[in-house]
Amino acid sequence: MKNVRWCRIEVDDRPAYGLVEDPDVLIIDAPPYEAHRKTGRRFVFRGARLLPPVTPHNFYAAGSNFRSHIEWANRQLGRSRKVPPPQADIGYRSPNALIGSGAEIVIPKDAPGPLHYEGELVAIIGRRVRNVAEENALDCVAGYTLGNDISERSFQKNDRTLWRAKNSDTFKPMGPVVATGLDPMDQGITVRINGKEVSSYNTKDAIFSLSHYIARITAYVTLWPGDVIWLGCGGPTLPALEAGDLVEVTNDAIGVLVNRVVRSP
Amino acid sequence: MKNVRWCRIEVDDRPAYGLVEDPDVLIIDAPPYEAHRKTGRRFVFRGARLLPPVTPHNFYAAGSNFRSHIEWANRQLGRSRKVPPPQADIGYRSPNALIGSGAEIVIPKDAPGPLHYEGELVAIIGRRVRNVAEENALDCVAGYTLGNDISERSFQKNDRTLWRAKNSDTFKPMGPVVATGLDPMDQGITVRINGKEVSSYNTKDAIFSLSHYIARITAYVTLWPGDVIWLGCGGPTLPALEAGDLVEVTNDAIGVLVNRVVRSP
Repeated sequence: MKNVRWCRIEVDDRPAYGLVEDPDVLIIDAPPYEAHRKTGRRFVFRGARLLPPVTPHNFYAAGSNFRSHIEWANRQLGRSRKVPPPQADIGYRSPNALIGSGAEIVIPKDAPGPLHYEGELVAIIGRRVRNVAEENALDCVAGYTLGNDISERSFQKNDRTLWRAKNSDTFKPMGPVVATGLDPMDQGITVRINGKEVSSYNTKDAIFSLSHYIARITAYVTLWPGDVIWLGCGGPTLPALEAGDLVEVTNDAIGVLVNRVVRSP
Repeated sequence: MKNVRWCRIEVDDRPAYGLVEDPDVLIIDAPPYEAHRKTGRRFVFRGARLLPPVTPHNFYAAGSNFRSHIEWANRQLGRSRKVPPPQADIGYRSPNALIGSGAEIVIPKDAPGPLHYEGELVAIIGRRVRNVAEENALDCVAGYTLGNDISERSFQKNDRTLWRAKNSDTFKPMGPVVATGLDPMDQGITVRINGKEVSSYNTKDAIFSLSHYIARITAYVTLWPGDVIWLGCGGPTLPALEAGDLVEVTNDAIGVLVNRVVRSP
């Protein structure tokens, strides 16, 4: 599948996969990484309600994968993780927290803050694999999208786990579309708040490559179609997000993941 | 739904829900916590291939929820978690690791060990809830099953996350059936290895009740039908499991979750 762009949108109150052929989305009857056919229905892409491109059964996150982010987070959170980490250990996030581009990020009413963005490249797994070698690890990837790993730093610092800090409802924007044919280790990721660039890095600065993660994960764990691997972010994640802010994570090939921040009433 | 027992079994290579009416399983066309009808098909319960009763989208685990287990684990893992913990923080496990009763627990070939059982009560969520009060928190629970939170203690001690330690393929046996009408905070859980009792505790010794967890979780996170909450285990989890061992987690109302341990070739 070369240089295709696909998405998932709401059609008649249900999720539907679609191929993006600007200005249209052509609805298909199955995920693009499985056998599928066009249904004949089409919608205007810019008028469609975007959903997260997949609802993964397993949601993996690299977390600490950029030197510039780990060093900054150590200071921010008063911790002392080694740089570089001794090995590529993968973490988890909860599918419950996923929202699509255009949906609102809701700050829990008692969250002390600060609330931070983390703009990340996301790999979508397209087929079931176990024990993959690093050299052909990318064969199982169906494409790439963007993620915003919203993080409540007080909860992150004080809770035993990341459950509220990173998995509160709406804390995982993902989208807008999935693009194929990218080199995952040479992608520029830029974050804007209210139109102003606040962060920019390239995935070539990652400590561990996606291939390395996939090889290591699949030595113990089966990856399934629709699973996602978020690759971590580079650099600081300042300034903090405030209610009313518009936050955008962008990449030239994938587009713009855009979400408004609101506070729970 | 009072004192029903249900399960999920493999029928024609696909998962099917069934009501357990000994000696039969009566196949139904939807999960028991949704509107469902009997299909007319029946199978002998003791001859059926059991699957995990649900495949959750979100898999929550209390982890440290019994004083006797935290104190022992602190010594075992060389850590110093407070007893009791200051608050009920929930953790995550990965649905990928789930297997049913009867399936094999596979020790990864390079796992240094020790490999431990953790026999736990598991709550199955039956309807979508957010912001539930503690006093009616159990209304969203569809029933209870058993879980074995298999833990590789070297990985647990040395990795940054629990990914391999608790989420390697096959590390989360769950079943055999779901029982309704139980008091979750007064259940005896017994573990046997090769027929010999090695652990026995009652959930009334839990630090935080299931109601407390549900109220706290749903202040930040939506629970969905089919999600699971594993309640943690009491006491030490000795002796270590070895290849060839038969490990059983038992409860009077739910039955016996039984799995054979093997080592990956």
